[in-house]
Amino acid sequence: MHLYDLDTPALVIDTDVMQRNLRRMADYAREHRLSLRPHTKTHKIPALGRIQLALGAVGLTVAKPGEAEVMLGAAPREILVAYPTIGSKKLARLVEVARQTRVLMSLDSLEVARELSDAVSAAGVEIGVLTEIDVGLGRVGVRPGPDLLSLIQGIDQLPGLDWDGIAFYPGHVKSLDAAGLRTIEEVSALLGQTIQELRSHGFEPRIVSGGSTPSWEHSHEIGGMNEIRPGTYIFNDKNSVGIGSCSWDDCAASILVTVVSVAVPGQAIIDGGSKTFSSDRLATGGEGFGEVVGMPEAVFTKMNEEHGFLDISRTGRQLKVGDKLRIIPNHVCVAVNLHERIYGARGETVEDCWTVEGRGKLQ
Amino acid sequence: MHLYDLDTPALVIDTDVMQRNLRRMADYAREHRLSLRPHTKTHKIPALGRIQLALGAVGLTVAKPGEAEVMLGAAPREILVAYPTIGSKKLARLVEVARQTRVLMSLDSLEVARELSDAVSAAGVEIGVLTEIDVGLGRVGVRPGPDLLSLIQGIDQLPGLDWDGIAFYPGHVKSLDAAGLRTIEEVSALLGQTIQELRSHGFEPRIVSGGSTPSWEHSHEIGGMNEIRPGTYIFNDKNSVGIGSCSWDDCAASILVTVVSVAVPGQAIIDGGSKTFSSDRLATGGEGFGEVVGMPEAVFTKMNEEHGFLDISRTGRQLKVGDKLRIIPNHVCVAVNLHERIYGARGETVEDCWTVEGRGKLQ
Repeated sequence: MHLYDLDTPALVIDTDVMQRNLRRMADYAREHRLSLRPHTKTHKIPALGRIQLALGAVGLTVAKPGEAEVMLGAAPREILVAYPTIGSKKLARLVEVARQTRVLMSLDSLEVARELSDAVSAAGVEIGVLTEIDVGLGRVGVRPGPDLLSLIQGIDQLPGLDWDGIAFYPGHVKSLDAAGLRTIEEVSALLGQTIQELRSHGFEPRIVSGGSTPSWEHSHEIGGMNEIRPGTYIFNDKNSVGIGSCSWDDCAASILVTVVSVAVPGQAIIDGGSKTFSSDRLATGGEGFGEVVGMPEAVFTKMNEEHGFLDISRTGRQLKVGDKLRIIPNHVCVAVNLHERIYGARGETVEDCWTVEGRGKLQ
Repeated sequence: MHLYDLDTPALVIDTDVMQRNLRRMADYAREHRLSLRPHTKTHKIPALGRIQLALGAVGLTVAKPGEAEVMLGAAPREILVAYPTIGSKKLARLVEVARQTRVLMSLDSLEVARELSDAVSAAGVEIGVLTEIDVGLGRVGVRPGPDLLSLIQGIDQLPGLDWDGIAFYPGHVKSLDAAGLRTIEEVSALLGQTIQELRSHGFEPRIVSGGSTPSWEHSHEIGGMNEIRPGTYIFNDKNSVGIGSCSWDDCAASILVTVVSVAVPGQAIIDGGSKTFSSDRLATGGEGFGEVVGMPEAVFTKMNEEHGFLDISRTGRQLKVGDKLRIIPNHVCVAVNLHERIYGARGETVEDCWTVEGRGKLQ
């Protein structure tokens, strides 16, 4: 099928670009002896998780038990639930996943660890635990030092839990808006000191997991880290380009839209708005909700749920009702989450259609 | 089931408040002899469309053929597709809907009208058409005057189409940020002149459809308008309160969340972010992604996909991991679209669970 025969709006993946992105990260991880545990929140599709595993990933990362259930379809040896998961319903689901593959969870409080321990030990399964530390993002994670040590000591005494190491999210490294620690040197120093201290108390972290897409090329410079969990790199997006983690040529995902109205001069209304792209602004600040492929002067100024407003006054081009455009979204993860299925194309030929099985798994 | 036994995040509707909202609008429309054709984009649930019809709605409004298919489940006498719909796949679906109930479409170009005419006349069905006019929002719609007249004359000659009147979106009336026409008097004058002109050319609009939730209480003051299409009023949200179209007591929808981390002092991380609330900012400007019920000093400062950041430093309260909170979203329509199912509660007792059947219908 030709690309333009897809009903719009449709999220389309250039599969050649995707494959190149996947191989580049796998090669990078192998070269630097970093374990690669891709976060599947970007694609939410088991078939793509399988490709990541085939290229050498040690396991997959998810945020919710519902996503872990879906990713069992990729047959990973390990699934990391990178989220402090609480509540009896969620833990019951996680226990079932843990009967089928090894499960790890990252967490930052003894409350979460105790609930987890109760659930898994009652069920007779074991789950690995990574203690989350905060290296400056100020989101989740305890500060290294006495709090971390006492959390690990607490976990160590809970039945059913295997303490496997530490996790953190260094997405802010190199970014301008984060508070606290910023440089690779500072993060490395903090990690080195933390690992040293844990060792001196008899805790040897098997896993020190941290890398993410924004900082991926610097992962090997962060001393002590031995695992990365990038997600966005499979598709990339306008944010990835904006923060310098890829070029436009590495953007595999675009949303095919149709112009539905040109009644207002200098403006085109497209059939995708916040229900199609999400209303995420650019992470780096700046205007617009996406990049119109081939029309760099067009500005995606505004959105309602079903309407996208393109200011085309500076493009020197006229558009007419029925014209098709491709737009690279600001943030591809949240865009994929809005689509029941997405398409794979080589050039302008559609070759694949994937159901986004992990879409909308809020629990 | 008690509310707090729901797995979180969960979108919960206070059904007493919802029923009051539904009755208030139905009474208002009846009192002022306005037809009520609720936009179902807010709830996307046929069972709730049925209640709207039972309370006197003349039909239902949707944006996409996929939503029209879903809303057939409410058995409306008429469905208005309030969107310029093009493309053979969408029109084929719309034709099938038109075999089951009367369908109207609003559009603003002869291109869309011609495609529609071709599709419906080939199938041997008829579809009603409302010509969309722009009363100042600058989104879709032709300007009243010669363009409108020639569009209607063109539609009049196309087989399979019944011209039924005009549609517009006056959501910007009373709002501060819209360009162009603003006051009720100006919109009334424009409408009066437009209708007069159409009549003088032999076109009597049966339907003059325009009201929306933001301006609902002023609908009867807009001279010439005989139909309203509010959507958000069924649930309301923080935006509705911000623009003055309801009070906090009229907000039927809130999202139940759980605190998952309090590792950073003065902050609580909740298990809902942009994948649960959407990243829509407040329509009126201002900070925050929702209103924490019972904690007006808490500020929902930031979101990632799965993390909501609450600044609780000014609340004088401590929160602990596992605490449950209810948060009224900025924009309930886009939030509902992110949930597979939503719950109905009276007080703290969950009595209903609805599948959001129209969720994610992008086509």
